[in-house]
Amino acid sequence: MSSVKNFQVTKITTTDRVEVPDLLAVEEPLEIRLGYGALDDRKQKNIAVTMRTPGHDIELAIGFLFTEGLIVAQKDIVSANYCEDVATEEEKGNVVRVELHPEIEFALKKLERNFYTTSSCGVCGKSSIESITTQCRLEIKNDPDFKVSTDVIHQLPITLREEQSVFEHTGGLHATGLFDVAGKLLMLREDVGRHNAFDKVIGASVEKASLPLDQSIVLVSGRLSFELVQKAAMAGVRILVAVGAPSSLAIDLAKSFQMTVIGFTRNDRFNIYSHPERISDL
Amino acid sequence: MSSVKNFQVTKITTTDRVEVPDLLAVEEPLEIRLGYGALDDRKQKNIAVTMRTPGHDIELAIGFLFTEGLIVAQKDIVSANYCEDVATEEEKGNVVRVELHPEIEFALKKLERNFYTTSSCGVCGKSSIESITTQCRLEIKNDPDFKVSTDVIHQLPITLREEQSVFEHTGGLHATGLFDVAGKLLMLREDVGRHNAFDKVIGASVEKASLPLDQSIVLVSGRLSFELVQKAAMAGVRILVAVGAPSSLAIDLAKSFQMTVIGFTRNDRFNIYSHPERISDL
Repeated sequence: MSSVKNFQVTKITTTDRVEVPDLLAVEEPLEIRLGYGALDDRKQKNIAVTMRTPGHDIELAIGFLFTEGLIVAQKDIVSANYCEDVATEEEKGNVVRVELHPEIEFALKKLERNFYTTSSCGVCGKSSIESITTQCRLEIKNDPDFKVSTDVIHQLPITLREEQSVFEHTGGLHATGLFDVAGKLLMLREDVGRHNAFDKVIGASVEKASLPLDQSIVLVSGRLSFELVQKAAMAGVRILVAVGAPSSLAIDLAKSFQMTVIGFTRNDRFNIYSHPERISDL
Repeated sequence: MSSVKNFQVTKITTTDRVEVPDLLAVEEPLEIRLGYGALDDRKQKNIAVTMRTPGHDIELAIGFLFTEGLIVAQKDIVSANYCEDVATEEEKGNVVRVELHPEIEFALKKLERNFYTTSSCGVCGKSSIESITTQCRLEIKNDPDFKVSTDVIHQLPITLREEQSVFEHTGGLHATGLFDVAGKLLMLREDVGRHNAFDKVIGASVEKASLPLDQSIVLVSGRLSFELVQKAAMAGVRILVAVGAPSSLAIDLAKSFQMTVIGFTRNDRFNIYSHPERISDL
């Protein structure tokens, strides 16, 4: 499936009204199914439907499972493929089934607990943060020598923008970029949903066994919500940069993970909201 | 609860590094509980937790119930209030309980069917659109005289921006504005989540019994996803305007509802993606 689609558009300026063809980012539902249990008693569960831009769907599914705490590493997965047993031709390419290793206990309760924690143990920022803190199972180093220069940070959104070919055409896609400490772009993923773009990067990192991302910089194109910092925390990210503004709870969560968060990164300016010691002026 | 919070921030420019206080938009979970059933056999169900910016929470809860198809009008609701029976002091103000009229059958199955339709009857844009089409229960007029001038459209984001006081301070909030046909702002709601800002406007309209919104213009500050067009369709919106880009499925759904959708509305330009006949040059 393509990530862009042609539409006929009426373009209006103060002096003109013209009918022209234009490209829009595709948005389609992706269903994630999980196969689990002993080989002689295999079970299936539909665990999520997310509205996403087609492309890197397997990575998206794996990244989602990882950031939800259902898998820890690539070895937990036997295979991940598009389903063939869908109702209509149109649905093909919109359903991914991930087979868990038979010895991995599928923590169905974990999905339920996620809801349970927020609904009964407390619905406030503090309890949300505690719930995330108990979920993260990566060993994250706090390397005092891991520092990034301000020049590298200034350059990140420029590099991302240059590489975002679909964005150039449609203006409709969020992006997540993975950079090394010198500001070299290692990976770029796009999606109409900012959380999906991030899950695609994390899913690819699970597949490459390159987690935790504690020696990289992650840049997200939009604003920074609690949900995105939660994904960054699960992946062990130490420096998370946004083009837009962060929310209060995003910063509170970042601080509890000793994560550096940067926002409003544009036009040779940015704001550091937590752990500024990792950003050096040299 | 406040909608903004103070943080200490390190501001970086190419020549400067200063520590200053700054405001960020608050993000906190809101739990929506529903009371339903006969008066002598009252039941409760936690139906959603959404990350939102505090403010207009009752409207948000009512708007959510309406756009999910669980209520049709204000008369379906007996009362809506913050819950007092929460676990800790910090959670107060984060839980809203809506009491349905005892004679309203709470369509628990409807929530399940929403998932069921996407997971079994088809996961593709076409089936998603069909599922929304069957849910909308408002009578929407297609008034051929309901037209808006291009000048009014050009002005909408300027008016919204001027009125967005919180946005001016934090840069972190999405907004939904309700305008009349002459471009006069009737209502403005803000939130870290664009869907919440829209639900707040719709919830307020349910409370005022001013639905359908078929004689107004709705402007959303960000991009236009399928989810936002779904909310607009449920509320009977005829002209939906976005500052950012729409997705393919957003436009497909809008067309099935004969809705006019406009995107990229900025700097005296905009694009009309569907039903341009409602936008007049005069």
